[in-house]
Amino acid sequence: MTTMTETTMRHTLTTPTDRTIRVERIFDATRDRVWRAYTEPALVAQWWGRGNKLVIEKLEVERGGHWRFVEHADGETHGFEGRFLEVTPQDRIARTFEWDGMPGYTIRETAEFTDLGDGRTRVVSTSLFFTPEERDGMLHSGMEGGMALSYAALDRLLANSRD
Amino acid sequence: MTTMTETTMRHTLTTPTDRTIRVERIFDATRDRVWRAYTEPALVAQWWGRGNKLVIEKLEVERGGHWRFVEHADGETHGFEGRFLEVTPQDRIARTFEWDGMPGYTIRETAEFTDLGDGRTRVVSTSLFFTPEERDGMLHSGMEGGMALSYAALDRLLANSRD
Repeated sequence: MTTMTETTMRHTLTTPTDRTIRVERIFDATRDRVWRAYTEPALVAQWWGRGNKLVIEKLEVERGGHWRFVEHADGETHGFEGRFLEVTPQDRIARTFEWDGMPGYTIRETAEFTDLGDGRTRVVSTSLFFTPEERDGMLHSGMEGGMALSYAALDRLLANSRD
Repeated sequence: MTTMTETTMRHTLTTPTDRTIRVERIFDATRDRVWRAYTEPALVAQWWGRGNKLVIEKLEVERGGHWRFVEHADGETHGFEGRFLEVTPQDRIARTFEWDGMPGYTIRETAEFTDLGDGRTRVVSTSLFFTPEERDGMLHSGMEGGMALSYAALDRLLANSRD
């Protein structure tokens, strides 16, 4: 199902509104395993940082819980944090996201997990920004390439940890 | 300059866009004193809670700093928190704001302080919401009355602590 070309950019990115980025991606693993890769600290640490060392300082996966990750890359550290709005196990997570480099430029992220019935899982991630300018800034930041690397790392994690 | 009528609702509230609330309020104190009332924990504790006990758990008034206040009223506690985007002393503060009761429903607040040259200070507070529905929810929550009470408490603090 996966061609060589699709290996690097297997997601579909669209911009449904001028403050939104929507990304759709299919993973070759059951919904339970994808959910755990998104919510268990030891698993998140293996893919979210795209191969860079990632310290999961906090990951309280419940409504109102806080999260904070610190990525170590090329001698620099980058902190990311936010808070959970909604956690519906295996189905949906909504949380805020901000990068320490632009504190308070909060993004509201939603991830929805769909069981495709054939052992695969679709994840639709939607990011809502306060302004169109902030959305465009993110689009032009190289986020898409970084995200593709994270998703590829997640593919490898899911392949290696197959039940 | 203040009539009895103005005492209860001395601010001007407008809605410049469908995701914004703008509040203008004049305080009878110098800009330096108003700035301190907004940024020094011992002073904030005296007015922000509208007379209720307010615990300032954190107030890091600098770009990237976090803040968290807990209000104790009628046997209940209400936590509020966020992070500073911008701190320009005596001039401008931008920060995020969220209430524990609706975690992740982040509001971006900006307060601008203008020296009116006659010993008074104008504060313009602008709140930007992620969606029009969230803005409307805030407008209908009774926030305006609560805010008027906070501002009245700040008037009293400024009158009592006059240099």
